[in-house]
Amino acid sequence: MSELEGLTERMRRFARDRDWEQFHTPKNLAMALAGEVGELLAELQWLTPAEASEVMADPEAAARLRSEIADVTLYLVRLADVLGIDLVTAGHAKLDESDKRYTVEDYRGSARKAPPLS
Amino acid sequence: MSELEGLTERMRRFARDRDWEQFHTPKNLAMALAGEVGELLAELQWLTPAEASEVMADPEAAARLRSEIADVTLYLVRLADVLGIDLVTAGHAKLDESDKRYTVEDYRGSARKAPPLS
Amino acid sequence: MSELEGLTERMRRFARDRDWEQFHTPKNLAMALAGEVGELLAELQWLTPAEASEVMADPEAAARLRSEIADVTLYLVRLADVLGIDLVTAGHAKLDESDKRYTVEDYRGSARKAPPLS
Amino acid sequence: MSELEGLTERMRRFARDRDWEQFHTPKNLAMALAGEVGELLAELQWLTPAEASEVMADPEAAARLRSEIADVTLYLVRLADVLGIDLVTAGHAKLDESDKRYTVEDYRGSARKAPPLS
Repeated sequence: MSELEGLTERMRRFARDRDWEQFHTPKNLAMALAGEVGELLAELQWLTPAEASEVMADPEAAARLRSEIADVTLYLVRLADVLGIDLVTAGHAKLDESDKRYTVEDYRGSARKAPPLS
Repeated sequence: MSELEGLTERMRRFARDRDWEQFHTPKNLAMALAGEVGELLAELQWLTPAEASEVMADPEAAARLRSEIADVTLYLVRLADVLGIDLVTAGHAKLDESDKRYTVEDYRGSARKAPPLS
Repeated sequence: MSELEGLTERMRRFARDRDWEQFHTPKNLAMALAGEVGELLAELQWLTPAEASEVMADPEAAARLRSEIADVTLYLVRLADVLGIDLVTAGHAKLDESDKRYTVEDYRGSARKAPPLS
Repeated sequence: MSELEGLTERMRRFARDRDWEQFHTPKNLAMALAGEVGELLAELQWLTPAEASEVMADPEAAARLRSEIADVTLYLVRLADVLGIDLVTAGHAKLDESDKRYTVEDYRGSARKAPPLS
């Protein structure tokens, strides 16, 4: 079993044991994912870029960031499971597209040209 | 190399080849992650719960959801890499906490008691 | 002074009095706005649609929702002020566009056709 | 009629004319709000703080930001209407609290002390 399958299986059991599968609908999980990303943003929002680059050197801030990123990961893994999407396969497929769309020649180094992946 | 390490390494190369590492700061990546989660929400927002549960049966909607979930995954993997956080380790640590905090006896089946993981 | 100008002026003074203008950059405020929207989502995420429609009948949930919506409003007002955007003028301009784009004849009543405003 | 009431009334009519009230549930509108905030973030995510501070000087970027902020405003106004919340009253109530909680003496000027409003 791969590492993500392990996490997926554990989340599945976590929900089943508590009879929370009824709450884990695609819409609800997408909202929960967005809520956790919001908490992640809140950890970084008032930092200068320089402070944010060093944020993991502060043990308390690092612990909070690990905790928020974990929440994001868990809801993402759970949502993907409920939808039947393999995260790693989907990620590589998207990078295949991005490799073609954002060619190194055309996009190298320009801030103006650095677009979202999508 | 694990599957997530493979994706992490590929994102790292993607950014380096385009000289986009300068843009991939913690704050910028967290914003990009939130932006992609927003696009994921937009795919589900007007569906009824019943429609959302069947959404993957529609090939076009399924392709869009796979694409948006891939974007979320890629920025999450990249942000974790920049911060030096291991997603799977962090996820299991959070589930260890949640197992203790949301005991099966106390939280089983009640909507009112179903809290966010955090 | 209009009601929104009153709120805008009060946020301006709030930031100035605490010397927080340095933190209230467009990027930081957009992150804060997203963080507060995340908290708003968290209030609604596990409710069924029926429960969510009645949520304001519960005094405690209503107070939390009012508080989260207030945070969203305040950061939106502050971000608009920093960017020099008039929210009401921008809102009406967008609705002028939407009136033309989503004509009543073409878009009436179809879930499939109900798109985001943008 | 105040300026926000005008916008609220127009959104109400916009939904009614298209028979879209069925889609404008609290959960759906909160998701739409988060989706639009995501688009707003995407406009700012790759800019340096200096670039973001000057972003409104670029007519094309300014138009996009006005459009995204308008979408956020419209969904916020619509969600508040559906929930029966007055945005300006809620905003002032929150600022009354924040004035007491974040006193000028204790919070003046410190990055470390600059917390979210909530």
